[in-house]
Amino acid sequence: MRLVAELETLVLRQEDVRRIFEIVGRDHVMTCLIERLSDGLGELGRGECPNSPPRAGFTRGAGARGVIDVMPHYLPGSGLTVKTISYNPNGRREANLPTVLGSIARIDEASGAPIAICDAVLLTAVRTGAASAIASRLFALPKSRTVGVVGAGAQAVTQLHGLSLLFDIDTVLVHDVSPVNAKSLKQRASFIDCEFKTVSPHELLASSDIIFTATSVVPGAGPVIPDVEHLPHLHINSIGADEVGKTELPVSMLRRAYVCVDHPEQARTEGESQQLEPEEIGLPLSYFCAHPEDASKHMNSLTVFDSTGFAWEDHIAMDVFLELARDIGLGEKVSIVHCPEDVHNPYDLSSW
Amino acid sequence: MRLVAELETLVLRQEDVRRIFEIVGRDHVMTCLIERLSDGLGELGRGECPNSPPRAGFTRGAGARGVIDVMPHYLPGSGLTVKTISYNPNGRREANLPTVLGSIARIDEASGAPIAICDAVLLTAVRTGAASAIASRLFALPKSRTVGVVGAGAQAVTQLHGLSLLFDIDTVLVHDVSPVNAKSLKQRASFIDCEFKTVSPHELLASSDIIFTATSVVPGAGPVIPDVEHLPHLHINSIGADEVGKTELPVSMLRRAYVCVDHPEQARTEGESQQLEPEEIGLPLSYFCAHPEDASKHMNSLTVFDSTGFAWEDHIAMDVFLELARDIGLGEKVSIVHCPEDVHNPYDLSSW
Repeated sequence: MRLVAELETLVLRQEDVRRIFEIVGRDHVMTCLIERLSDGLGELGRGECPNSPPRAGFTRGAGARGVIDVMPHYLPGSGLTVKTISYNPNGRREANLPTVLGSIARIDEASGAPIAICDAVLLTAVRTGAASAIASRLFALPKSRTVGVVGAGAQAVTQLHGLSLLFDIDTVLVHDVSPVNAKSLKQRASFIDCEFKTVSPHELLASSDIIFTATSVVPGAGPVIPDVEHLPHLHINSIGADEVGKTELPVSMLRRAYVCVDHPEQARTEGESQQLEPEEIGLPLSYFCAHPEDASKHMNSLTVFDSTGFAWEDHIAMDVFLELARDIGLGEKVSIVHCPEDVHNPYDLSSW
Repeated sequence: MRLVAELETLVLRQEDVRRIFEIVGRDHVMTCLIERLSDGLGELGRGECPNSPPRAGFTRGAGARGVIDVMPHYLPGSGLTVKTISYNPNGRREANLPTVLGSIARIDEASGAPIAICDAVLLTAVRTGAASAIASRLFALPKSRTVGVVGAGAQAVTQLHGLSLLFDIDTVLVHDVSPVNAKSLKQRASFIDCEFKTVSPHELLASSDIIFTATSVVPGAGPVIPDVEHLPHLHINSIGADEVGKTELPVSMLRRAYVCVDHPEQARTEGESQQLEPEEIGLPLSYFCAHPEDASKHMNSLTVFDSTGFAWEDHIAMDVFLELARDIGLGEKVSIVHCPEDVHNPYDLSSW
């Protein structure tokens, strides 16, 4: 007897994901993500689960910018998660599309059937914000009040959101090559009660306790901030890594900093760590989630979280989205996989 | 202005795929696949399109057999196809599941959105049958009448189907470790008008013009046929490659044969070519689809098609399924991807 339920696919439509946020609230989703991701990275750091392979990226042809990545993670006992995600910095201009856009599927371990599929635009933005919040909790001073934003696009909203749940932010200093983006961040992040100021990179560096860089800088055209005077305890989350050759930070700052990566292999291929020798790169975030006391030693000096985003983070984020959807009763189940009653006869169409 | 249609996902349910086969007939689908795959492999052989990366396989943990593979193919101008496919030789016994089970998605090149998702059980079986038919048209004698089947499971049905459309088969000789499977193939392949006989491996080798091996032999437990007397012009399609260490043919036969592979890297990792040195392996099928005259030289001697199944084949097969579904008007469009009106604000949920 076959358990048909195992083969059905739960499709979470965009309105289902909206309902999750409407019902439980964005703070609840982000808080869940921060705690679950911190726990999951800790498991990885203690060697209790396998790491993700580095993602396979396909570079767009014919002069179009950006990549489409395939990011699989297999957790024995839980299943396979596969995210496909496009980074297309021209997408907004050409078709009013988010720069980072994709979807994510969960594959049942025993059957191989896709048991769920949902959006990865909001999921990626939230999990990336959660990862930076976790790194900041480990490496930034707890009394950090001023956050510097370099690149005020979509990712900036969830980066600020994650930080706002762990730090008592009173000032956000914003720099973007587009003055319109820099200015509109205040409205888009209006759920954070603090002062927003558009400033020069020099002013931003001089006063920020925590900075994040989330830009679409062209490969080879970085860095996006100068190496100028900054607070001694500055912590930077550099999250713009999505293309080989794309970097956001001055190598001189990286060399002075303790650099913590999320996924060592990916970081050396597409992160800030492309600019460093192996011995200049610190331990991964998963290590510090397992041993937080080792991170606090670095709190009073310059630290960088080199965030490339990896598939284990997506697996955990999808768990959270699916659990919230299940608790509320959202999504539509459809039968996609062809499973004939006589499994030895693919042309047995009669019994469907 | 955004073209919303580009972001919607066409979900082909299992009943939609059934309708395709009911309306156009299995022969039409298989014939389309054979011709489109032959053309597509020819393009690859002429260097007109990129090859697929080798698939990433995740081996099931905790003593469970089999793998779950992720198979991406990116064709500039067409999009990214990602198939996730499980090989689980115990699935049938444990849960009456097909041994090979999965699904396939097409990602829009510009947006990164999943524009279609459908079954990969029937698709994989049909495209694998089509690939073997193409190899047999190139390497087997056109007057081949007797086909030997080693492993009479699900794949045997579509292997026979593909051959039956290109050769005037009068006799099918069947061997399977399960006598029940061997016997039931006649019913499952009853659309082919010929005689079916259950025979020993020796009898099968002695009389077959074309043989295919499609078994679930345990890695290291092969070969599944002995190296005994066979017709001088014998052509073998070995299609059981899905695990490292799993092989079906005696290495002595492989060394005597001209071995044509589908995907050289995969063949050396998980195909019959694991048993060979690089210099013992012939040119890939794509070369011969571009230069069929070079294949016919081998028609009167022993040839082997080492079929591992690769993602370019799946990309083409999905094209065919999607075109047939579109012509008939099948499938349901759903909005999965989160695309806020203000693309710089992932929390802009109001405008959905």
